Amino acid sequence: MTDFAATRRAFHLPQGITYLDGNSLGPMPVAARDRVARMMADEWSEMLIAGWNKAGWYVQPRRVGDRIARLIGAGPGQVVMGDTLSIKVFQALSAALRLRPGRRVILSDSGNFPSDLYVAQGLAQAVGAELRVVPPEDVEAAIAPDLAVLMLTEVDYRTGRRHDMAALTARAHQAGALAVWDLAHSAGAVDVDLTGADADFAVGCTYKYLNGGPGAPAFIWTHPRHADAAQPILQGWMGHDAPFAFDLDYRPASGIERMRVGTPPVIALTALDAALDVWEGVGLADLRARSIDLTQAFVAGVEARCPDVTLNSPRDPARRGSQIGFRHPQAYAVMQALIAAGVVGDFRAPDVLRFGFAPLYNDLDDVERAVDTLARVLRDGIWDDEKFRQKAAVT
Amino acid sequence: MTDFAATRRAFHLPQGITYLDGNSLGPMPVAARDRVARMMADEWSEMLIAGWNKAGWYVQPRRVGDRIARLIGAGPGQVVMGDTLSIKVFQALSAALRLRPGRRVILSDSGNFPSDLYVAQGLAQAVGAELRVVPPEDVEAAIAPDLAVLMLTEVDYRTGRRHDMAALTARAHQAGALAVWDLAHSAGAVDVDLTGADADFAVGCTYKYLNGGPGAPAFIWTHPRHADAAQPILQGWMGHDAPFAFDLDYRPASGIERMRVGTPPVIALTALDAALDVWEGVGLADLRARSIDLTQAFVAGVEARCPDVTLNSPRDPARRGSQIGFRHPQAYAVMQALIAAGVVGDFRAPDVLRFGFAPLYNDLDDVERAVDTLARVLRDGIWDDEKFRQKAAVT
Repeated sequence: MTDFAATRRAFHLPQGITYLDGNSLGPMPVAARDRVARMMADEWSEMLIAGWNKAGWYVQPRRVGDRIARLIGAGPGQVVMGDTLSIKVFQALSAALRLRPGRRVILSDSGNFPSDLYVAQGLAQAVGAELRVVPPEDVEAAIAPDLAVLMLTEVDYRTGRRHDMAALTARAHQAGALAVWDLAHSAGAVDVDLTGADADFAVGCTYKYLNGGPGAPAFIWTHPRHADAAQPILQGWMGHDAPFAFDLDYRPASGIERMRVGTPPVIALTALDAALDVWEGVGLADLRARSIDLTQAFVAGVEARCPDVTLNSPRDPARRGSQIGFRHPQAYAVMQALIAAGVVGDFRAPDVLRFGFAPLYNDLDDVERAVDTLARVLRDGIWDDEKFRQKAAVT
Repeated sequence: MTDFAATRRAFHLPQGITYLDGNSLGPMPVAARDRVARMMADEWSEMLIAGWNKAGWYVQPRRVGDRIARLIGAGPGQVVMGDTLSIKVFQALSAALRLRPGRRVILSDSGNFPSDLYVAQGLAQAVGAELRVVPPEDVEAAIAPDLAVLMLTEVDYRTGRRHDMAALTARAHQAGALAVWDLAHSAGAVDVDLTGADADFAVGCTYKYLNGGPGAPAFIWTHPRHADAAQPILQGWMGHDAPFAFDLDYRPASGIERMRVGTPPVIALTALDAALDVWEGVGLADLRARSIDLTQAFVAGVEARCPDVTLNSPRDPARRGSQIGFRHPQAYAVMQALIAAGVVGDFRAPDVLRFGFAPLYNDLDDVERAVDTLARVLRDGIWDDEKFRQKAAVT
């Protein structure tokens, strides 16, 4: 059994705050602060350029990738770190498109994070592909024989709705297409199993449930069947077969290494590496069970006590990730009042109160306080009373 | 007059080391370590998600960009930070290509850093452009009326040869083409003047002469005449006109903001921001004068005392950056012996000893020690004697 009291203690959580926004930015693991300080003092300071070998900076993107692999159902040597999620979406999508020559349709849904759609639009325009965007519930029906790539975010950033990765991937494969999955709201939140789902490419960020810090590097996974065939458009020296031969012509490295582009962000990767220590000993089944306990308790509590809000997430926990949304006509002001009272979730336009539950550090006390505070804010109608914030901030 | 003794004191330089590899990775400014520790403890820890506004993380890429602008002859609001240099090359090059519809030739040279050529190859293949690579001395003659983009690195990473940015840009413009400049070995090393040279796009890294730390973020500059017309292929949410409206369609932000892609790397940008403090009060003319003093003294010293090496950099300081290369048939072994003796330069295949002189922290004592050590290593023929390293390491 995973010891979630111990994982909670690994974080610095500000006094008096119930933090339910780890699906936007995870809190700081204490080890991240200490490890970065040590890296600055012992590695950059003292080793200088030799740190690339001596301190292992050069292999860090693969080594850290291996640590994430376990959390997403991938094997060792299949994940590499770097860049941002948007860049990794571009790489995965462009590589997938090239593996389906003669086809030009990319299918996504309107529940995808907008940046993924922007990336797809930019790529489609540049290479003459076509992006089709349908509502999330219509994705399966829209998988047609002309499809090149199905590109989806597994867990919807607003509603928490979780796509059935295995089923949709199978449908895409039946149509002769490939499936690219964005795990931004999945990795570290639910029991992702890329290998079991037989996905083709996956990408994700590490500043949410993986707690790597603001703007922490992204990851990319390629199924081994594609790893030596994928041809990324973004060809950088770190993805070259022999970066330090300084050849004038690009020759991709074998395997996932070719998805590296430029010089890796060592300080940020060091923070992330330390943040991943918290995951040692955490079982994904335990993680999922705790996530469901927390979200179910929150839904039940809010529905029992807050008649003015409407659930904006699937009721069936099997069909959602680790976040819960409720709609309220004054959602923005309500969230401001909640934050002022020490319960930090976030607002998503036009009317959604969003609450993320991170099994590593959130517990049933957090749920209880969030329910109580939301009920009080709504009951007293104080969300638009400026004075409330002053009062609430000191209680 | 710039106080270079003071700028030198701002760095942590390891005991007993003469560091002449700041053109690969700059040493740590003490403020970088302290600032990152403070950012972790006061911002990420305590502000959590609110740090994006409260601590100014969201505007950091522009704010830090403005600090770099001064060092490259650009104006405020014209530079933005993020990603890696290879990604920024891709953005600048793709945007420049699109500004020259109907033309498809990219011209570069074999002295360019290979990653720039790899990026251009990947882009050219994807969009049907053609990359022509000529020797550095043939660039001017190769600027033809079919040229779309001239893409060069101002200072050659091996030889230190400096292109005449103003003259080549003018030639490119006469041919109806645009000029993209990579400032990797220029920014913080020489008196770059993008505005004076009338360049179109520029990119650079910050881990060399700008001392931002291993893998520090890159920068990109767009001339104001193109800033609202440039259409990057890499369309990410941070470059959207209204990132938090979560529109499904991309609409580029005005100006340089559209060159942002994903979530910015806050920890790394914080280290870089602190590193840029050292530049306050540093005049570019002083910087250039000191660079020339150091490199001239090094060339004169080595040529007077080391008959076995051949200068691999332009003799005229006006035609080179802030680094000096010498060729020696056993260059790799010689560099190992130098490093063992505490003089850190680096080796570039096949036979180049490369020494970078960073005016902010290198001084004439460094030059003297480097010359003495190189002369001794070569005179005694001890570069391939394993025992030498042991002895040298303790002297």
